[in-house]
Amino acid sequence: MPLLDVRSRDPGSRARAGVLHLAHGPVRTPAFVPLATKAAIKTLEPHEVAALGYDMVLGNTFHLFLAPGHDLIGGLGGLHRFMRWDGPIITDSGGFQVFSMGHGAVADEIKGRAPGVGADGHRAGRVSAIEERGVTFRSYLDGAERFMGPETSMEVQAALGSDIALVFDECTPFNVSRDYTARSTERTHRWLERCLAWHGEHGPPGQVVYGIVQGGVHEDLRRESSQVIAASGCDGVAIGGSLGEHKAQMYEVVDWAADELERGAAAGRPRHLLGIGDIDDLLRGVELGMDTFDCAMPTRLGRHGMAIVPDPERRWRLDLGKARHKLADEPLMEGCPCPACAAGYSRAYLHYLVRAREVTAMRLLTIHNLAYVARLMASLRAAIGDGTLAARVAALRGGAAP
Amino acid sequence: MPLLDVRSRDPGSRARAGVLHLAHGPVRTPAFVPLATKAAIKTLEPHEVAALGYDMVLGNTFHLFLAPGHDLIGGLGGLHRFMRWDGPIITDSGGFQVFSMGHGAVADEIKGRAPGVGADGHRAGRVSAIEERGVTFRSYLDGAERFMGPETSMEVQAALGSDIALVFDECTPFNVSRDYTARSTERTHRWLERCLAWHGEHGPPGQVVYGIVQGGVHEDLRRESSQVIAASGCDGVAIGGSLGEHKAQMYEVVDWAADELERGAAAGRPRHLLGIGDIDDLLRGVELGMDTFDCAMPTRLGRHGMAIVPDPERRWRLDLGKARHKLADEPLMEGCPCPACAAGYSRAYLHYLVRAREVTAMRLLTIHNLAYVARLMASLRAAIGDGTLAARVAALRGGAAP
Repeated sequence: MPLLDVRSRDPGSRARAGVLHLAHGPVRTPAFVPLATKAAIKTLEPHEVAALGYDMVLGNTFHLFLAPGHDLIGGLGGLHRFMRWDGPIITDSGGFQVFSMGHGAVADEIKGRAPGVGADGHRAGRVSAIEERGVTFRSYLDGAERFMGPETSMEVQAALGSDIALVFDECTPFNVSRDYTARSTERTHRWLERCLAWHGEHGPPGQVVYGIVQGGVHEDLRRESSQVIAASGCDGVAIGGSLGEHKAQMYEVVDWAADELERGAAAGRPRHLLGIGDIDDLLRGVELGMDTFDCAMPTRLGRHGMAIVPDPERRWRLDLGKARHKLADEPLMEGCPCPACAAGYSRAYLHYLVRAREVTAMRLLTIHNLAYVARLMASLRAAIGDGTLAARVAALRGGAAP
Repeated sequence: MPLLDVRSRDPGSRARAGVLHLAHGPVRTPAFVPLATKAAIKTLEPHEVAALGYDMVLGNTFHLFLAPGHDLIGGLGGLHRFMRWDGPIITDSGGFQVFSMGHGAVADEIKGRAPGVGADGHRAGRVSAIEERGVTFRSYLDGAERFMGPETSMEVQAALGSDIALVFDECTPFNVSRDYTARSTERTHRWLERCLAWHGEHGPPGQVVYGIVQGGVHEDLRRESSQVIAASGCDGVAIGGSLGEHKAQMYEVVDWAADELERGAAAGRPRHLLGIGDIDDLLRGVELGMDTFDCAMPTRLGRHGMAIVPDPERRWRLDLGKARHKLADEPLMEGCPCPACAAGYSRAYLHYLVRAREVTAMRLLTIHNLAYVARLMASLRAAIGDGTLAARVAALRGGAAP
């Protein structure tokens, strides 16, 4: 059985639907992967996330390395048992967080945050040295000096026991020179080999490894990086790094990589688009041939009082903190079958809870947003199967509910 | 049908079990009433609270008066519809919060908080004037001058449409003179009459009114206050105010009031003990003849990383933030049937989540704590019905699981 069992292909794009067969079970693709950054999907329990229609979650190597530590989680039976999630888990490599501290701008660029705040809203730690062997930095928790290199990252992910491990990479920022990007991407490729070597010797049974395509916004570097990853022994491919200044550039960058990955032996390997999850990006990403996506967007928006609604003109967002909802005796989203909407809360009530900073509101909006994205992905999978993807994407892009 | 239908009495104490018949349904007594301070049980949804075994919740008149305002909630169909809780609701009078701002010490005394922090952890507002007509104060939200008197309180509660309204009272602090307490209690009695007069004319159909016994820690004042409340036209009686320096004094104060309330026509009226909910206090309170209790304890402890467990030596508390739980691969509470424990999370996992300030931990512990108290009250009701209360209370006090 191949790792990715492609069952349908869209005739008009690179989109494909299938099943990713992982150690802890199948993942229906294309799929969105909610973040369980610190071994918890914020405000929810794992079984609730599964009930919303998700097969896989993403755990954060960097944060879990710092606390509670991979040894502790490994000693308690691994991340699945620790957090009581029985399904597949993908772990990122830690590269994004480590380099966010060093470059500062990477995270801000990709995530649209104010400078000086590290990944996931933490105050940034401090990087002492970026060397061939890896990165030395100070923990944001206690200021202690810590080191993470390719082998460390794989060791942490092995102890966590994730189904998919990502190789340690440098997440090159957008605003650096072409020369820096080229050298950084080459180092990422050398680190890929070290990761695969470590994993070949010590990796836990059943864990697969994804390489990461870098190369910034330069077509030749992206294509070359894709070829290097495709030629390596990795099981799947993730596309990472700074994907450009605006969405059109991001789609172009992903397109270059996906184009390369369609050729030869790599064509059948699963592809993951790192850190991308806006509704329009999911639609385009599926067309570009991506199988899985992860992003803080649905959960983070929920915690900030925003609901995902079928409103492309407002970037699919409804800001419940706005005063116009104060007296709105209407549902969050008409006809929405999610558990939060089904309970019948009005926008006025949610507005009040958001303003009062009640955790119940964060939770309700997190549920609604994750349910929305789960239905969107299910709708895309079904449309690929039916051969109706183009019409479905057009309708969704135009504001149809998934 | 009487408001309180007493079905069993304990031969060895004043304890009684029955059903409180309210506009939105029955409440099995004795009952604990979880706080829905700002129209939400923190971290939970109303239907989840019902599923844990609760028939009634408490909404906060003071907070809802300031935001979103009783007019808004009334205009949207009342508090039940606003928060989607179909069962009975009791609203406090706002007196506790208003006077907490004025006296400062009251809330600290009763709730064990640092001085200067108002009820429910808000920064204290400021009281401009305490007069016969009511209290003028500045809102903690926007600094605007607001007024609340007996009629305001009843008007707010009428708009909220609660099943049980409490009369506006002065919550006399512990550390004031006997003379102040006597004068304050007399004013509370005058306010009672104004509340009842307003309610007689404007109160919504089906809403019942509880008077509030004050009198500080003085036996004669408490007994006299109980007699005045009993002689009034109120439907039920709440016991409020500072109940003393320590638990023995609190039980004594409640005993004086309950003794008076056993006599004459008042004997059949329901009794509520305000703001009390420690496990040992619930056990004693039931024996003293209280029918209902409200307290932030189970929910607030949960948000602070503490679980209620059958451990009287540690005040029934397990502090999951303590380092000793770091590697504890054991359940929160062996054999606990609550949804949080049933999911199988270890103490080590909960310790990590508490330390990482993950909201999921607050929610899991809130569920566990509310489930614990719900089972405790159900166990006491059953024991009163079986005539085995003394043995049951002794076992629970000794550390038996409910």
